[in-house]
Amino acid sequence: MSSDTIGPLISPAALRGSIRSGEYSGLSGGLARGFVQCNVVILPERYAAEFLAFCQLNPKPCPLLAMGTPGDPTLPTLGDDIDIRSDVSAYRVFENGVPTEEVADIAHLWRSDFVTFALGCSFSFEEALEDAGLDVRHNSLGLTNPMFTTNIETVAAGPFRGEMVVTMRPFTPAGAIRAIQITSRYPGVHGAPVHFGDPAAIGITDLTEVEFGGDAVPIHDGEVPVFWACGVTPQVALANANLPICITHKPAHMLVTDKRNAELAIL
Amino acid sequence: MSSDTIGPLISPAALRGSIRSGEYSGLSGGLARGFVQCNVVILPERYAAEFLAFCQLNPKPCPLLAMGTPGDPTLPTLGDDIDIRSDVSAYRVFENGVPTEEVADIAHLWRSDFVTFALGCSFSFEEALEDAGLDVRHNSLGLTNPMFTTNIETVAAGPFRGEMVVTMRPFTPAGAIRAIQITSRYPGVHGAPVHFGDPAAIGITDLTEVEFGGDAVPIHDGEVPVFWACGVTPQVALANANLPICITHKPAHMLVTDKRNAELAIL
Repeated sequence: MSSDTIGPLISPAALRGSIRSGEYSGLSGGLARGFVQCNVVILPERYAAEFLAFCQLNPKPCPLLAMGTPGDPTLPTLGDDIDIRSDVSAYRVFENGVPTEEVADIAHLWRSDFVTFALGCSFSFEEALEDAGLDVRHNSLGLTNPMFTTNIETVAAGPFRGEMVVTMRPFTPAGAIRAIQITSRYPGVHGAPVHFGDPAAIGITDLTEVEFGGDAVPIHDGEVPVFWACGVTPQVALANANLPICITHKPAHMLVTDKRNAELAIL
Repeated sequence: MSSDTIGPLISPAALRGSIRSGEYSGLSGGLARGFVQCNVVILPERYAAEFLAFCQLNPKPCPLLAMGTPGDPTLPTLGDDIDIRSDVSAYRVFENGVPTEEVADIAHLWRSDFVTFALGCSFSFEEALEDAGLDVRHNSLGLTNPMFTTNIETVAAGPFRGEMVVTMRPFTPAGAIRAIQITSRYPGVHGAPVHFGDPAAIGITDLTEVEFGGDAVPIHDGEVPVFWACGVTPQVALANANLPICITHKPAHMLVTDKRNAELAIL
């Protein structure tokens, strides 16, 4: 497979090129393996300081990896040629807190006061888990990771507030202990889990009732569900904030950057 | 409290002096806070190489911190003045695999071919857990930690074999995640847990049926039992090995050293 073929070994720049040209509009998981993928939030400058505070107060669901300047669609610390108006394979537009459309490009919506936030994503630590020989169930089954709204309240900042969204991965207890060790090395992409075991303890009543376009995954005998904070949490906070307009990636359609996952390991 | 009073702030050397003189013969937990306490195994030289191999093959239950030379009762890397014949507050003597007596001093039993092994103990990481604000239940209740034989087989070496012994501490899932992070820093004192949750999965049928002189501790609603490998495991292996003679500390009566717990943190 060459670095231009859509697949695990495509380079981030080639993948962004395919997305920018409209050739590729699918899921980003499993592509450009080894490189950081990001959750994206774009909103007017007047809300940027409060959203930045929201990220600072909630580092597990909202680990901020990069922030743009008003009107500037580039994110030079994440990739030389990134144009956030075209380089995500699917966007979700919110108006007055309600998702109104999904689009493949936002050049026609771009404004001189738009500020971009790029937040870490669990795809980075999933690669580390798999490299350690652990089975990340939704990946081995070719599914999207299961996401759930919890009863864990985020810390509010300005209009941004709401419950934390989590992802779930099942492991044996020994596997979960190893997964906790590994993901603790990656605080920039959600870090250690926030919970394991009884889903009801964090307000999840049914693990088959997945949200945000995720898939339910089977939990085998002897396994426990392990829950990590999820970068979809800001989408809940954005809906609650009722901003006149804001734009995010469509869940599971992330911004693929030139930063390596291994660069994010704190030790 | 002065450094000569038996209590949390006594110096290791003063505590060993009190034990050596016969003044103190009690539990070592909670004394000389900040300093490493060790499990002790003393056996004839002809079995030393195989026991060393057993430790190497089973580093979680048998983390070797120091080893003496034949006939030498000192352990200079653990303390200038340590005399292993007198500096443990209670010893257990095994003959042909059976515990035959508990004594306060082994000078009369010492032989020119005896080799001493000092293994790490969970007291070191318990201090780190408490310093992080976690409740180590048996300590806060003034009890000895609960110990259980599991169905986890150690890796055999020569005559040394048997099931792993574990200690149990209850935590909320969030507390358990933090405890896994903290104890992972201390591989020299058992490191991360080996299991959490269902006791039956590791062959424990009843958490109130404690062994080795430990106490049962209550598990509160919303907590899960978390299990760490225990330095009493060698005592099971020694019983299985049927050595003509060997000597250990009495459980919970550890060798108190001059090494600081914080020195053992690998990061």
